[in-house]
Parts: sequence; structure tokens; C-alpha cells
Amino acid sequence: MGHDPLTYADAGVSLGAADAAVAAIGPHVARTMRPEVTGAFGGFSGLFALPPGRWRAPLLATSCDGVGTKLEIARQVGRYDTVGQDLVAMVVDDLVVCGAEPLVFNDYIAVGALDVAAVEQIVAGIADGCVTAGCALVGGETAEHPGVMAPGQVDVAGFGVGVVERDAVLGPDRVAAGDHLVAMASTGLHSNGYSLARRVVADLDLADDHGLIVETLGEALLRPTRIYARDCLALIAATEVHALCHVTGGGVPGNLPRVLPDGLGAAVDTGTFTTPAIMELVATRGPVAPAEMWRTFNMGAGMIAVVPDGASAVELLRDRDVDAWVCGAVTDRPGVELSGT
Amino acid sequence: MGHDPLTYADAGVSLGAADAAVAAIGPHVARTMRPEVTGAFGGFSGLFALPPGRWRAPLLATSCDGVGTKLEIARQVGRYDTVGQDLVAMVVDDLVVCGAEPLVFNDYIAVGALDVAAVEQIVAGIADGCVTAGCALVGGETAEHPGVMAPGQVDVAGFGVGVVERDAVLGPDRVAAGDHLVAMASTGLHSNGYSLARRVVADLDLADDHGLIVETLGEALLRPTRIYARDCLALIAATEVHALCHVTGGGVPGNLPRVLPDGLGAAVDTGTFTTPAIMELVATRGPVAPAEMWRTFNMGAGMIAVVPDGASAVELLRDRDVDAWVCGAVTDRPGVELSGT
Repeated sequence: MGHDPLTYADAGVSLGAADAAVAAIGPHVARTMRPEVTGAFGGFSGLFALPPGRWRAPLLATSCDGVGTKLEIARQVGRYDTVGQDLVAMVVDDLVVCGAEPLVFNDYIAVGALDVAAVEQIVAGIADGCVTAGCALVGGETAEHPGVMAPGQVDVAGFGVGVVERDAVLGPDRVAAGDHLVAMASTGLHSNGYSLARRVVADLDLADDHGLIVETLGEALLRPTRIYARDCLALIAATEVHALCHVTGGGVPGNLPRVLPDGLGAAVDTGTFTTPAIMELVATRGPVAPAEMWRTFNMGAGMIAVVPDGASAVELLRDRDVDAWVCGAVTDRPGVELSGT
Repeated sequence: MGHDPLTYADAGVSLGAADAAVAAIGPHVARTMRPEVTGAFGGFSGLFALPPGRWRAPLLATSCDGVGTKLEIARQVGRYDTVGQDLVAMVVDDLVVCGAEPLVFNDYIAVGALDVAAVEQIVAGIADGCVTAGCALVGGETAEHPGVMAPGQVDVAGFGVGVVERDAVLGPDRVAAGDHLVAMASTGLHSNGYSLARRVVADLDLADDHGLIVETLGEALLRPTRIYARDCLALIAATEVHALCHVTGGGVPGNLPRVLPDGLGAAVDTGTFTTPAIMELVATRGPVAPAEMWRTFNMGAGMIAVVPDGASAVELLRDRDVDAWVCGAVTDRPGVELSGT
């Protein structure tokens, strides 16, 4: 070293690894392509053609999100192939709640040191999620932050764009008292409440099942978030849907009010929910009180449709292999009332 | 504590601070609004109406980026009011290079512990950048990662969407031998090469000027990235532009090839560049060899337009207070040739 000239590589930025990462993710990106994507991967921006005539008065819907500290569980377990689906789910299911079809996705991955295998696993999961959601992965940024993030530290953020016809936007203005609330089953914690869940399981061995029986604690915590986008679009195409509520941070009582008009409320029968075993474990081991559980986790329903005809919606969703049930109704009493606990 | 029930707040997630942050950033978001934005801030997604008839065959352009470890300088200096402009610059100037008008922006902010004042400073800077670029800040996510990121640690990512008419997309296929390269002056390091720059200045007091005279080292390192988007759109509207090259990571030799067709190259006269003083400091103190400097930093030009008539482009840009000059030409010899150093 001494007075030898410094290079960018000396400063901890691995340009060779960056090239290897770009090569590794290429095939994953390729399988998400849609015919509307134009221009080569690697340009300054991703380009997507809006087919002329496809929409009369298109609205662009955009959303961005991360997966929180679920990534810390991935780091501890040493597998990064599930968090990509989580990332896509968080973003595209925020898009579909207004009725928008997710079209394109971008990812941001920040790492302390570039681990090509980990980045490939993350992007493979993102590509899986994009295929499930029907959107194209058109761009992204993988940033190495040597000396700021620890070598094994990773964070991800995702960004999606969808389009919805102006007169088809779903939301509170369509919702009426008497509408049914149709819950769609979650796969587990999805991507919310991990700071609390991690605190509860901090001293537990992730490789043990701790009574979960069918899977280890690590597997239960890493279960990928269900992606509802295409099921919701199918529901919208086939039946009348007034609003969709993506149950994320804040749970049912925190998110249902976002789709209710002033003056109306919701009555939710918590007895209709099948709480995932991982949430029972968190509640018992915390302990965490029921009200705090409901404010933090999805408690078994990751998406709730607000519809005039709950039975038809449930039938359609079950035909698509989405476990669904009527979990309550819109009322003329403001506030979200949970009963049955 | 003992067996008292755990809450989400116990786990280090500050819901009260989150509400305070949302309240603090509201006015900044509001000043970026455009008439096409519909729906209230705080919905599941941001909505932007594409005016019917405005584009015949619109292409969506998307881009995402971060500001790298420039944030670490912000943390050390204790001011976060400049990095927001950097973030917008990195994203919107990747959009404009294909000719797209930036329309909407989303931000992702990850923090170890929610510091409302720091988040407000970041978002205020993002809003400033959005106003400069002419795009609306329609959404974002601020994520608290307790126990994973240190309390004072911050990372940001930005996502933008623009639209360009299909037959107006700029790029290599328009570029011809003999085209002029018109450089637009940078304000300094912009948002690239910070891992190397930080390594060089690691032992220096950021509050001292170290010969920079007009500013402290910290101020020089934090100078916001210039946003060229509107200047580029004005250039496209007024003159013939074949391609635009955003000079980011990889510098001039790393980025110019991205806008050159197969078989053509570029001759760049490095003697026409006025290297910012902060780069001279990095080169001298490293020491960092000239070739490594050119591969890492913008060396004084943050954007290069490829045009048939360089003199007209320079005049138009200077009229808009952008210092611009002809720095070279497109040649029929493949590769980027730097001469004059």
C-alpha cells in the first residue's frame, strides 16, 4: 500500500462482482418479460409501451415498499430466495387495491459487500413474484455500501407501476352499508410486524419447530407473502367489487378504515379467522395481547374485498385456489368493530 | 417488563414518530403536486392521470437509484437537507436520457430509528428536486429497522416514472459519426464515487477547507447533484438531439459507450473540462491516478448531449444558465478515446 495509487476497488467496491451479478440476474429478468417492454435491459431506464386504445383515460398507479426486518431472518437462516416474492407482493398488492393492473417493477438492493449468490437468490424471487403478478422486471439498482453496511447486511425496496381506467378506480366512494367483507387467507406473517416477531423469538433456535410441527421456526417466519394481484383482477373482471383492502402494517383495524367512506364503519367477526400457527406462537411466547396482535399482524387475512355479493366472490376465489370467506360487513356505525375474540 | 405483554412499540417501532413524520412531510409533498395527480396522499398507491390525446403512442420510462455512501457524509456532517436533491437527480436524469418527461416520483427511506427532523430534511430535499425536475412526489415508504440498522443509519432509494412518445425515443440508433459531444457542467462529485472519496478523506476534518477556500470539505462533498432534466427537455424541444448520456458511476468512459451504436466511438478532449476542486483534492490526496479518476468521477460534466450542431446546443444551454461546451465528437473508431490529459 503506502503511496501506491488508490483505486475504486481498494475502497471496497467490487466492479468484477457487479459484472458477475448482472450476468447472474439476466435470465431471471428475461422470464418476466412482456411484449410491451421495449429497449434492452441495461439502458438508463426501462421502457414499456402502453398499447394505443387499450385504455380510454389511463391513470398511472405507483407504489413503493420494502420488506422490513424480515430480511434479518433471511440473513440468519442464510437463504434469500423467498424475500423477493415478499417484495413484489407488498408493492403489486398496493397497486391492485385501486383496480390497477401491475405492469412493471423495479428493485433496489443495498448490500454491505456484494455476494453474487445472495443477490441472484433475491432477484430470482423477485422474478418469481413478477411472473405470478404478471408484471415485467424492467430495471433495478444493486448498490454496494462498504464501510456503512456490514458485509452480510442487505436491504431491498421495490417499486411498481400499474394502470387503471379512470372510471374504474376502486375505493371508499363505492362502498355502501351492507357490503360484505370477503377475507382472503394469508400464508403467515407476510411482510409485517417482524420487529415484534423477531423480538419474541430472539432466543429461540430458528432450526427447531417449537411446536409448529410442519415446519421449522425459520421456515415459518420466511414463508413468502401471498400475491393476490391476479386473483383480485379476476374478481374485478367477473363481479362487482367496491374496494380492496391490503392488510399490511396496522392489521385489519389499521387498514380497513382506508377503504371506508366517512360515516360508515365495519363489523369484523374475528371468530371466522384461522390464525396462522406462527402468530399463535408469537402471541403465546411474547406474550402479546390480542388487541396488539390484531393491530400488528394480518391474523390470517392478507386481503379483504368489499363487495355487494360476498357469496359469489367467495366462490370465484375458491375456484382460483384462494381460501376465502365472508368475515364481516360494512355498517353505518363509524369505526372498525372486532367481535368474537 | 418481566411478563408484561409485549407491544410493537416495545420492539423499537415508533408509531407516534411515524405519525409525526407523516405530518412533517405533508407540506413538502404538497408543493410538488401537478394537476394530473388524483387521489389523496396516503392512499395505497399514487395516481397520475395521463391526459388523453397528450401522447399518441406513449412509452412508460421507469428508473430507480440511490445516492450510495454520500449519505454517510451527510450523517457525519449532521445535515440531511441536500441528499434528497441528489436522489431525484440520479433518477430523473436517467429518465430524461431517452427523452422522457419525468412525471412522478416515489421515495424509500430506511432508518435504524425514526428521527423525524432528519426524515423531514430528506423529504424536503426530495421535494425541492421534484419541483426542479417538474415531477410530483406521489408516494413513498419510510421504514424503521430497529436492531438491524444502527439508530443513526439512513439509506434512501428513489423511483421515477416518465413518458416519452415512441417515435421520439433518443439513443444510439440516432447517433452518427461527426456528431458533437456537448458537456454540461457538474456541481461536483454528484452522487458517484463516494466509497473512494470517503476512503481518501477518512482522516480529514470535514469542517476544515483543506485548500478548497470557498467551502469546507464537508460542504464540497455534500454539494447537491445538478438536475438536468428540464434543460435536456428544453434542448430536445428546440434543437435536434440524438442521444443524452448521464455521467454517473463509471464516468465518461463507462457511460458514453451506452449511447454509441456498434462500430462508432468517441474522441473526448479532456483539456476542455474544468475539474471541480474536490476532485483535484481526491486525486492529490489519494493519490488516485488520472485514468482511475476518469473511470470513477464525472470530472466536471454530469450530462453529455450528442447533437449534430454543438454550437446551437451550447448557446441554448448557456441561456438557461447551464455551463456547457463542446468536449469532443463521435468518430468511426470504436471505443472512447480520452486525449488532452
